[in-house]
Amino acid sequence: MSTDSVRHQKISEALKAHKIDGLICQLPENVVFLTGFWPLTGTSWVVFSADGQHKLIIPACEAIEAEQYGEKDFSVYEWAHLKADNPLEQIEGCLRLICQYFQIHNGIIGIEENFANVAPPLNMGESCVPCKSSKELISHALPKARLLDATDIINNLRTIKTDHEIRKLRIANEIAAFGLAAFRENAREGISEIELACRVNSAVAINGSGYKNTISARGFAQISSAGSTERGWRPCEITSNRRLEKGDIVILELGVVSDGFWADNTRVVVLGGANTQQKEVYNILLTAQSMAIEKIKPGVKMTDIDKAARDVVEKAGYGEYFIHITGHGIGWRYHEFPPLLAPGNETVLEEGMVTSVEPGVYIPGFGGMRIEDIVAVGKDGANTLSTFCREL
Amino acid sequence: MSTDSVRHQKISEALKAHKIDGLICQLPENVVFLTGFWPLTGTSWVVFSADGQHKLIIPACEAIEAEQYGEKDFSVYEWAHLKADNPLEQIEGCLRLICQYFQIHNGIIGIEENFANVAPPLNMGESCVPCKSSKELISHALPKARLLDATDIINNLRTIKTDHEIRKLRIANEIAAFGLAAFRENAREGISEIELACRVNSAVAINGSGYKNTISARGFAQISSAGSTERGWRPCEITSNRRLEKGDIVILELGVVSDGFWADNTRVVVLGGANTQQKEVYNILLTAQSMAIEKIKPGVKMTDIDKAARDVVEKAGYGEYFIHITGHGIGWRYHEFPPLLAPGNETVLEEGMVTSVEPGVYIPGFGGMRIEDIVAVGKDGANTLSTFCREL
Repeated sequence: MSTDSVRHQKISEALKAHKIDGLICQLPENVVFLTGFWPLTGTSWVVFSADGQHKLIIPACEAIEAEQYGEKDFSVYEWAHLKADNPLEQIEGCLRLICQYFQIHNGIIGIEENFANVAPPLNMGESCVPCKSSKELISHALPKARLLDATDIINNLRTIKTDHEIRKLRIANEIAAFGLAAFRENAREGISEIELACRVNSAVAINGSGYKNTISARGFAQISSAGSTERGWRPCEITSNRRLEKGDIVILELGVVSDGFWADNTRVVVLGGANTQQKEVYNILLTAQSMAIEKIKPGVKMTDIDKAARDVVEKAGYGEYFIHITGHGIGWRYHEFPPLLAPGNETVLEEGMVTSVEPGVYIPGFGGMRIEDIVAVGKDGANTLSTFCREL
Repeated sequence: MSTDSVRHQKISEALKAHKIDGLICQLPENVVFLTGFWPLTGTSWVVFSADGQHKLIIPACEAIEAEQYGEKDFSVYEWAHLKADNPLEQIEGCLRLICQYFQIHNGIIGIEENFANVAPPLNMGESCVPCKSSKELISHALPKARLLDATDIINNLRTIKTDHEIRKLRIANEIAAFGLAAFRENAREGISEIELACRVNSAVAINGSGYKNTISARGFAQISSAGSTERGWRPCEITSNRRLEKGDIVILELGVVSDGFWADNTRVVVLGGANTQQKEVYNILLTAQSMAIEKIKPGVKMTDIDKAARDVVEKAGYGEYFIHITGHGIGWRYHEFPPLLAPGNETVLEEGMVTSVEPGVYIPGFGGMRIEDIVAVGKDGANTLSTFCREL
């Protein structure tokens, strides 16, 4: 079983506490969460009962990978094959049988009605998402069940990672390090942003495939160099065909997904060596990040972690340019909440939370800099999952 | 304006015909469809009124690209910035003001309730999708409006492409050709499937960026070589770290997106030269594809296009191995329907439809082969949008 028994126990307890008899999920990220299987096309479903049983429903042609991901007992349906019956009717039939077998067909069923952001499946060209038809399909399969939105319950469960899941997230960060290394090696005068991004993404996919039994890994590199940082800070960047020049501040924002588990790292290089102000700003960010990470442990308010980083930047006189929060959760999606390391957030960190720590400043006429790493909240303090060199 | 006036006219007519006063869309693919702007983070919205006006609502930091994509007049909201108000409240406010300005705030508003498959935004790590909260947001913004699911209306409109859109799809196919060329050049003994896929994806991204004013292009290469084709045919393939060997049949399935417009091509190489049966099977597929393409024109039943290809394969004795349909629609998503070139589909082709034509056979012990190209239905016959060499 690729998902650990601790996780299954926690889901089971949460469902019982909320008087829900079972979950039916189809979002790739929740299929990974509930079973460990990362759907290839994103057309898989999973039924999870409050007594801890679960069963996948997958396209027959994904059976090899389901087994590789550790799932042994699943239902299959045929699709995109001329002799196949209507795949939606097959899925409906599977849902009916599985729910009857689990004896939850007349109960309260939690569904995914309110996921506003979604992570892609393994083959990323398109994804299936819950819609009106999915809800109707579940209603037809289980006419006597009561359907209930379980988005908050699932998100709450996802907030605290098990040791097994933290190991998976560490692997994703180790794979991201292949991309960070490619960035340092290839960030040279004359290479374009998009060429550099492709080298990073290739390093992630090639070195990640097979790494510690990883089946599939992908990188989502965003490169911004002088030309684009002049725009000021952006939560996303278009990687252009601008060629890097001496003196450029080059930022890599790198999302990585490895078997459905995400990493999120940022590194900076200055082409031809940093000048005094660039070094100064970078060192402020390094200190700010360290101060935040040092403060991380269960029971500390999220606002206090943010403050630990922000105080350093403010004292150095750059506070007005640190315009975003210090960190966000991550796990089965690039960006998950909670945690949210933000000013005024009085909620406290709990053991098993995983967060980015990413102070950044964006100064008109100077450019932007950010350092981002991923940290798990351990019993006695922070366990940093991304350990790639932070030198400028 | 990056979306043509023909398109705007057609949307306007369809809305009037269905007595809908306006559309509110947030799916990245529908934002591209309605405006031409490919959202970076996928957090953009668009309001389109039945009298042909439209307005984008985008994160302020995406304004540069919105202008590059030809949109001049848009509303912006701030997010991920400490000084920003709640972004959802800002979006709600924009929707209210725009709908009041368009005088559709008390009318019938079409929304996206039933898109089961979705294409990614420009930065593909995650995407926003319609959910319970989006509908509530629209309801709060327009308390007197009646919301209606417009999925079918939008899909119908998307079925017939304008000349402007066909030019965009041709560019996507031209960019895909960079990937097909990289595949032919790099498919050699010793390279792994994942390395080969990375070269294809890099060729697409690097050569596509800036090509005929394209802002961003991405490839989704799936490589299957001997090891995986033994599994038989699959609608998707996991690209593994298996190294290619002499005699391998290597298949590239390549999805490409260029500024939100998609291409879908398949090519085959046999390492070290094809043997007699491999050549025979490949030539049968080439003939089958040609026969189908020759038959394409407005008014012809889709089943007859499928039959034109299938007859060739059946007469050659391989009919039982041609297990899938001959083609599917494509446009603002990798796979769109209609058209569907399938046995028994009595609906007829119309001018402006765009379809894949992709006969394939998958023979146990021999392997799989497929050739896939994209064709627009012209007034007098097929216009092939993907013209890359089809030699084995």
